[in-house]
Amino acid sequence: MDGAAERAVGAIRDEKLPMMQKHELLHGRSVEEIAQHIRAAFSLEDALAGVSYIQENVPEKLDLKKAVFRQINDTLLKQGINASSTSPVIATSSSALPMSAISDGLELKHLCIVAHPVNPPQAIPLVELVPAPWTAKEVRIRARAIQEEIGQKPITLEKETPGFVLNRLQYALLAEAFRLVEDGVASAEDIDRAVKCGLGRRWTFMGPFQTIDLNAPKGVHDYCERYTDGISSIIKEQDNNRVWSKETVSTIHGAMRKLNGEEQEIPQASAWRDEQLFKLENHLSKQHDFK
Amino acid sequence: MDGAAERAVGAIRDEKLPMMQKHELLHGRSVEEIAQHIRAAFSLEDALAGVSYIQENVPEKLDLKKAVFRQINDTLLKQGINASSTSPVIATSSSALPMSAISDGLELKHLCIVAHPVNPPQAIPLVELVPAPWTAKEVRIRARAIQEEIGQKPITLEKETPGFVLNRLQYALLAEAFRLVEDGVASAEDIDRAVKCGLGRRWTFMGPFQTIDLNAPKGVHDYCERYTDGISSIIKEQDNNRVWSKETVSTIHGAMRKLNGEEQEIPQASAWRDEQLFKLENHLSKQHDFK
Repeated sequence: MDGAAERAVGAIRDEKLPMMQKHELLHGRSVEEIAQHIRAAFSLEDALAGVSYIQENVPEKLDLKKAVFRQINDTLLKQGINASSTSPVIATSSSALPMSAISDGLELKHLCIVAHPVNPPQAIPLVELVPAPWTAKEVRIRARAIQEEIGQKPITLEKETPGFVLNRLQYALLAEAFRLVEDGVASAEDIDRAVKCGLGRRWTFMGPFQTIDLNAPKGVHDYCERYTDGISSIIKEQDNNRVWSKETVSTIHGAMRKLNGEEQEIPQASAWRDEQLFKLENHLSKQHDFK
Repeated sequence: MDGAAERAVGAIRDEKLPMMQKHELLHGRSVEEIAQHIRAAFSLEDALAGVSYIQENVPEKLDLKKAVFRQINDTLLKQGINASSTSPVIATSSSALPMSAISDGLELKHLCIVAHPVNPPQAIPLVELVPAPWTAKEVRIRARAIQEEIGQKPITLEKETPGFVLNRLQYALLAEAFRLVEDGVASAEDIDRAVKCGLGRRWTFMGPFQTIDLNAPKGVHDYCERYTDGISSIIKEQDNNRVWSKETVSTIHGAMRKLNGEEQEIPQASAWRDEQLFKLENHLSKQHDFK
């Protein structure tokens, strides 16, 4: 038996599930009820026998992921899965490596897809599904259906794109945030405040498009007619070829010490963040979308 | 007496304050207690006598704002305020017009500053303070102190910048969101979902810098050392010179009808949004920052 695997299962039962229960995120089930469905397997043969969905979570290293996918592929082949099978879904948690690089050459590459969760996935429901060009349509659809069924909020990319969607949006905003600090427009703390006390409020329950749709009397069309000229002139001066200077990085790092504490306090700050995310998910789980 | 002004005061007392009370946002005070401090004035002389803070809210038209600021300036001069006074603060709610354009030529221009709130300001605490080059330092400091004192969360810009901070950040993210739809990477609904079910969760209680500070073991420095190369290569391909095509705008407008309803339902969707914002502010008002 493997002590590390037993401890990992124990941590889910004794720490993670009770944390979810505390924040009312177990959909009315008990910790025990859920825990009995979770077990450690000590061989791939055992882990993969008869499953409908696989989520690989090894570190973000291409060679390692390729080796693991090759092993999964070979094990499933021995169990009778073949090029005409449409199950199981074989997903990776990769946040950057594309599935075309991981699964190239595998007999079962049509079953493989990226399913990128956001940390901690018990509190942040988004999952980015990113198929390789050869991922079967049935696999794309079933991966999404399974994620929806377990209460996550999947999105599906139509093609492989560096950074996927979440990080591309994050980087676009970060690039402007860095420029504003570098240009001396506002302090790093105030730029953070602009997001957490302003912009981020609507974006917690509406996306950027739903937001602008309500910012003009007749929706997105109307918004773009009224404001595109003004917005375009601002966007055009946002220079995405600028690099982040050492001085700017140091200024921001220094400012964050006031918010997140000294470097050795980062684990406590991260635990505080996760607690906030759980509380927020609890709050949001009781609300309803407009449509 | 002016019926419209009486009705406006009545709406604050009978609708807006009870709405704030319902969401526990009156800091323990009663509707009556607050309502007795609110009255309509029927002349600028009456409205401005002995005040420490003025917030102008006429429509976003430069000629109109200039005319109102000229009247405020002349009325205050008659009441003994002059070029050496450091009070009152004369603020505008302008979301785009800079104070240098509004107050140029006024004897009291050193008292003038933009104080841009976010709608609805009872539920979204951010206020962007944007001084003109000639706004007195004492006025910048006092405007911020007064906003803090009433429970808002002000930020101070060091210089006039088109779009200020909030909209510049919003536009940077929107530009990428439009490109992702235009390039067929994901649907408008899924891009919205990536923000509301992913990115927006942390940004509700932490800004973008505080977020990345916790995304590497040793903070922003460490994050930038690890990820700048990968991030830069993505940012560089985000082309801010692209224009929003009619087709893309139509695609997004159509997608939003599923979320916000038909155009005639936009007022109901906006009321739902405001209710969500009030509930969220209630939730967040009970939490504490890490530091």
